[in-house]
Amino acid sequence: MIKVVAKCKLKPDVKIEEYLHDARELVAETRKEEGCITYALHQDINDPSIITMLEEWVDEEALNQHNKTEHVNRIVPELRKLRESTEVNIYREVE
Amino acid sequence: MIKVVAKCKLKPDVKIEEYLHDARELVAETRKEEGCITYALHQDINDPSIITMLEEWVDEEALNQHNKTEHVNRIVPELRKLRESTEVNIYREVE
Repeated sequence: MIKVVAKCKLKPDVKIEEYLHDARELVAETRKEEGCITYALHQDINDPSIITMLEEWVDEEALNQHNKTEHVNRIVPELRKLRESTEVNIYREVE
Repeated sequence: MIKVVAKCKLKPDVKIEEYLHDARELVAETRKEEGCITYALHQDINDPSIITMLEEWVDEEALNQHNKTEHVNRIVPELRKLRESTEVNIYREVE
């Protein structure tokens, strides 16, 4: 299993609900993917403009397939327009 | 439930195994805490010097109690000496 933390800081003039509307569609479509274990939107409790996707995938191949889907290629570029920054890390657990 | 992502970048001259030795003790002690759901060490698959704790707590009070424990106050300052940077975010899931 691999885990992804995709931390996004929204632009100051962006309405959070506008961002979440599109992000929720991405969540709903992504959860249908076979290799997706968890894919959930989170908001920083101290800074509501930080919206982070916490993800779990069966393996790297599943994540690569995800990045080629129609919903990622349609929705993610729209979400990026609303972000000031995006920071993505891919992790494996250390025993 | 709240989730914590504590992302740490180690100093360039630090041996990762040295860091993990102490971090594993922190994991073992923390998992005994009543309010701890998940507490696990992760390493970035593209940059081994990025070591991130992914945590789940029953509520903020459990996290506050954690930060007052003997093991946190003894081990975390030692870990911090080995880090270049530490970035902590506390999240709640957005439905």
